[in-house]
Amino acid sequence: MAEPEQQVPQAVDSGVVARIVTDVYRLCLADDSGALADYIPELAAVQPDSFALCLATADGRVYGCGDVAASFTIQSISKPFTYALALADRGPAAVAERIDVEPSGEPFNEISLDPVTERPRNPMINAGAITAASLITGHDRTEKFERIRRCYSGFAGRELTMNAAVYASEARTGFRNRAIGYMLRSFGIIDSDPDEAVDTYFRQCSLDITCRDLALMAATLANNGLNPVTRERALSVALTEQVLSVMTTCGMYNAAGDWVTTVGLPAKSGVGGGILAVLPGQIGIAVYSPRLDKHGNSVRGVAACRELSKRLELHFLHVTRSGRTAIRAAYSVAEVPSRLQRTTDELAVLAEHGDRARVYELHGDLLFAGAERAVRAIEEQAGALEALVIDLRRVGEVSEIAVHMLDELQNELAAAGCRVAIVDPDSKMGHLVSSLDPNDPRGRVFIDRDTATEWCEDIVLDHHRPAGEPACTSMPIEDHPALAALSPDNRARLTKDFEVRTIARGEVIARRGSTRSGLYLILEGRVRITFEGADERTHRLVSLSAGMSFGEIPMLVGTPFVNEARAETSVRVAVLSPQRFDVLTEKAPELKLALLERLAAGAYAQMDAAVRAIAVRGGDY
Amino acid sequence: MAEPEQQVPQAVDSGVVARIVTDVYRLCLADDSGALADYIPELAAVQPDSFALCLATADGRVYGCGDVAASFTIQSISKPFTYALALADRGPAAVAERIDVEPSGEPFNEISLDPVTERPRNPMINAGAITAASLITGHDRTEKFERIRRCYSGFAGRELTMNAAVYASEARTGFRNRAIGYMLRSFGIIDSDPDEAVDTYFRQCSLDITCRDLALMAATLANNGLNPVTRERALSVALTEQVLSVMTTCGMYNAAGDWVTTVGLPAKSGVGGGILAVLPGQIGIAVYSPRLDKHGNSVRGVAACRELSKRLELHFLHVTRSGRTAIRAAYSVAEVPSRLQRTTDELAVLAEHGDRARVYELHGDLLFAGAERAVRAIEEQAGALEALVIDLRRVGEVSEIAVHMLDELQNELAAAGCRVAIVDPDSKMGHLVSSLDPNDPRGRVFIDRDTATEWCEDIVLDHHRPAGEPACTSMPIEDHPALAALSPDNRARLTKDFEVRTIARGEVIARRGSTRSGLYLILEGRVRITFEGADERTHRLVSLSAGMSFGEIPMLVGTPFVNEARAETSVRVAVLSPQRFDVLTEKAPELKLALLERLAAGAYAQMDAAVRAIAVRGGDY
Repeated sequence: MAEPEQQVPQAVDSGVVARIVTDVYRLCLADDSGALADYIPELAAVQPDSFALCLATADGRVYGCGDVAASFTIQSISKPFTYALALADRGPAAVAERIDVEPSGEPFNEISLDPVTERPRNPMINAGAITAASLITGHDRTEKFERIRRCYSGFAGRELTMNAAVYASEARTGFRNRAIGYMLRSFGIIDSDPDEAVDTYFRQCSLDITCRDLALMAATLANNGLNPVTRERALSVALTEQVLSVMTTCGMYNAAGDWVTTVGLPAKSGVGGGILAVLPGQIGIAVYSPRLDKHGNSVRGVAACRELSKRLELHFLHVTRSGRTAIRAAYSVAEVPSRLQRTTDELAVLAEHGDRARVYELHGDLLFAGAERAVRAIEEQAGALEALVIDLRRVGEVSEIAVHMLDELQNELAAAGCRVAIVDPDSKMGHLVSSLDPNDPRGRVFIDRDTATEWCEDIVLDHHRPAGEPACTSMPIEDHPALAALSPDNRARLTKDFEVRTIARGEVIARRGSTRSGLYLILEGRVRITFEGADERTHRLVSLSAGMSFGEIPMLVGTPFVNEARAETSVRVAVLSPQRFDVLTEKAPELKLALLERLAAGAYAQMDAAVRAIAVRGGDY
Repeated sequence: MAEPEQQVPQAVDSGVVARIVTDVYRLCLADDSGALADYIPELAAVQPDSFALCLATADGRVYGCGDVAASFTIQSISKPFTYALALADRGPAAVAERIDVEPSGEPFNEISLDPVTERPRNPMINAGAITAASLITGHDRTEKFERIRRCYSGFAGRELTMNAAVYASEARTGFRNRAIGYMLRSFGIIDSDPDEAVDTYFRQCSLDITCRDLALMAATLANNGLNPVTRERALSVALTEQVLSVMTTCGMYNAAGDWVTTVGLPAKSGVGGGILAVLPGQIGIAVYSPRLDKHGNSVRGVAACRELSKRLELHFLHVTRSGRTAIRAAYSVAEVPSRLQRTTDELAVLAEHGDRARVYELHGDLLFAGAERAVRAIEEQAGALEALVIDLRRVGEVSEIAVHMLDELQNELAAAGCRVAIVDPDSKMGHLVSSLDPNDPRGRVFIDRDTATEWCEDIVLDHHRPAGEPACTSMPIEDHPALAALSPDNRARLTKDFEVRTIARGEVIARRGSTRSGLYLILEGRVRITFEGADERTHRLVSLSAGMSFGEIPMLVGTPFVNEARAETSVRVAVLSPQRFDVLTEKAPELKLALLERLAAGAYAQMDAAVRAIAVRGGDY
């Protein structure tokens, strides 16, 4: 219970958000209007000035001010939780046969049913709440109540206990609720002993909670039914949405409409002085102050929720632009090529036809509106496309409808002859796309965008490569462009200094940090130059193929390899060893200079292209 | 009006989303239950099978199926729009004195007021709607109605007209509404002629709309009151929120609670057969099908909204993770340095103390929950920080509370001796941070992150640079590290081949694409190497200072400059001209080789560091 004379707010912690909570607390502390509930002596006996305010985030951080550890009885705030348990126990359809979900426009304790449906108007009035209690599974009233107590405890993240004195008093004086119980029995809404249902209801209302407990219960609702502290699921996602829906229209007694307009948060209050409010996905709010207004809602509680909603802009209809900007970047493979270093012929084809393959990077949560934007943008280009990358790595949640829409889009594009590379290392799209069959006309799944882009380039090259010009995949050393331009004499002198080696796929050719190991001319296969990212994973800087070279700059300047070179396929290379290179330096410096100038030019252009590709893409400098 | 025998859905367009709309249309078309409104002959005379379904995005794209161009009277869907105009004309406080916002639990045409407040329960029942009509500004009924007509037309984006036959019939038979008008007059809720208010109400209900119009009206509400097609503001942001709030609890006659649970969209229906529903920020839905259920709502309309909400996951309490993940990346300046190339001494200081300056890149819309995460993460590090970059360039909307929180955070950090660089080229934070006073203890505003990071590095260097070791800012050519290591003879021979030049701040030293212009040793000042990004703006690749060099690789390999070099400050450089370089190549190849090896090593390391800084940062490969 609250300390007497408690007036100075006790901030639980410091910081920007804690100060905002404290400011609101101080502002509302000034109002001492309203009156304690007095229908039982226990409620009239609490410290009337007690006041606590907590704000909890959906990930479980609680900011609090005031008597956050003072106990009070949960009272009507229990209603949505027992309703939730009834929904879980019986299923929404069975519960809907007994309890409507319409705002009543009548006092919460009215002894009446809807004249047309002959059901309680909603689960937030006493008739609906007692019905919900009657629907809880259990052999007897002890087991039923224990299941309710455990359910609430799951939301709060600690074992709650009943206030025996309050229960005894409620049970002794609750004639009106007994009348409601018998009315429900007479209309067949309750099948079982109405006394048992009413007794269960009295017990649930008498559970002791603190403002901090209530904040975590709110945070659990905000977090889709998953307690963010204990990581225990208290309620399914679908039922959480349903309970919050009913709280939206019926939670605040007869002030529900005004509450939606001025606070705009699903909420529930109790005559014990508590209020719980929820911003789905984001925030839970709990207030305790026992003086009530004429509707039975805590005066300071309403004021604090209103002030927090206003200051923090928590109204649930508050519009943001999220979900609208699903496209993070869009470009053709001509604009941002893959890191596979292409031959001159290939580059010419891609320069002309590269706009037939486009990359769409998506981000944010992919709900309908965002997916619609993305699909619309892609459909507008679809007629001209032969291949497409959709990169989902930056996407958070992918809703079912977005999966369906992307899947449909893929069918549509496949029918038009365009294949789709989905970059989806975390399987956000699930089973819908086969990553196995390379001939699937719909496309493939990739774990990185670079490889997906390369695959799209290959499709464009297949379609548009001039006839009779197969890609060069293997060459004798004499034909390597690094030597081909030399005079026949010089070429002959150099060629015999090279050693031809075959390197197995996956093998490292030169490690990062290794000293100069040679000058390499690629005669067949692919070599991948990689670097380690901030994510501690290895990324491709560039891939090189037959006719290209590497190792020239380390060899020239005597520095270690700064990136790793690894055989991407089985590779055949011609290597000039450091020893031969040094001999060459002494005996024929001008030959060496000529060779190095050729090679360095190519290496520098490669490095430059890599800088450009990385820098250009993100638009993020 | 609808064509007779219209059964085959006319898809307005093709594509993934159009197909979803068509699917839902087909599904709902099958249900021909319900009855036409028949209280006036005009409503009973419409084509009962007519059916149209439109979905409009908040940016104005309309997907439609069926009789989307068939006219029908707006009827009760007019209520939220006249209420909106009344709020705009009189202000929310004055309107609240006349109309409550509580769900009524009574039929929409009840001749009664709330027994306690003696006001109409809400603006969606006839008593509230007639009161709203009476509050519209205007000299006479003609002007009042014309203002209403123009208001609706602003939402629809075209000039709407009244159906004279329906109006005449309503006016002839609307006894109940006249009774309500006189009741309102007798209670003083209407001050003026009740006949005029009722007549205005009849006229507004008789405005002809199409399903497409209704979709755009919904899209305008979804788009915060701004018509996304005409770009005209139909209603303020705050009033749009209020109107949607009231629609949430009171829009669907007596089925509001069930609607919130199963559809979960603010909505309004009319006995003409229309339904309008809104997902704030995202989607507007419109349906027309005149057969009504027992509540007076369109049978197919309710079914279509329910089905769309379920398939597209449009329920407004549907939780996403948006707003929770405000931090896009966080790292220290030791991990990702600025692109200013530091001296070895400086690098040593930054390696040891660089974790005292951190960069936080934020993204998404910055509402309270996201701002709380960001502020919390920064506060957790605050004790150890001397400088901080907060990069807002990727952030969308910044809410007022987020501005306040960041501002407070900056005060908090300033008090602890940590200065903050806000990267905010679009002034999202507005006036709150001075970008002018370089000594402001709170920090500065920057337009790019790289410069902000450099500023933070400077703070750390100022604090931790070993005493008596000022940064080297100027040197004679003999001391330049590129020459310092040569033998005295070689150094002397080379030095005289260099020419010392002074270059004014901002001047270009070497353009991208220019042929080799010389080998440059920086003796004083800073040179910035830049490249052009995909955004067609110029970005810094690296800045070089005294003791560093550039131009060596173009000189060595005879290629053009791939990036531009520009004087960042006034600069003093020593230049070896191409002519002298070529002479050197012939006369003393081994000297040239030695020089080039030294320089190329440095250049290569710089290029590598730049690749790494760019690649590492985004985490986006």
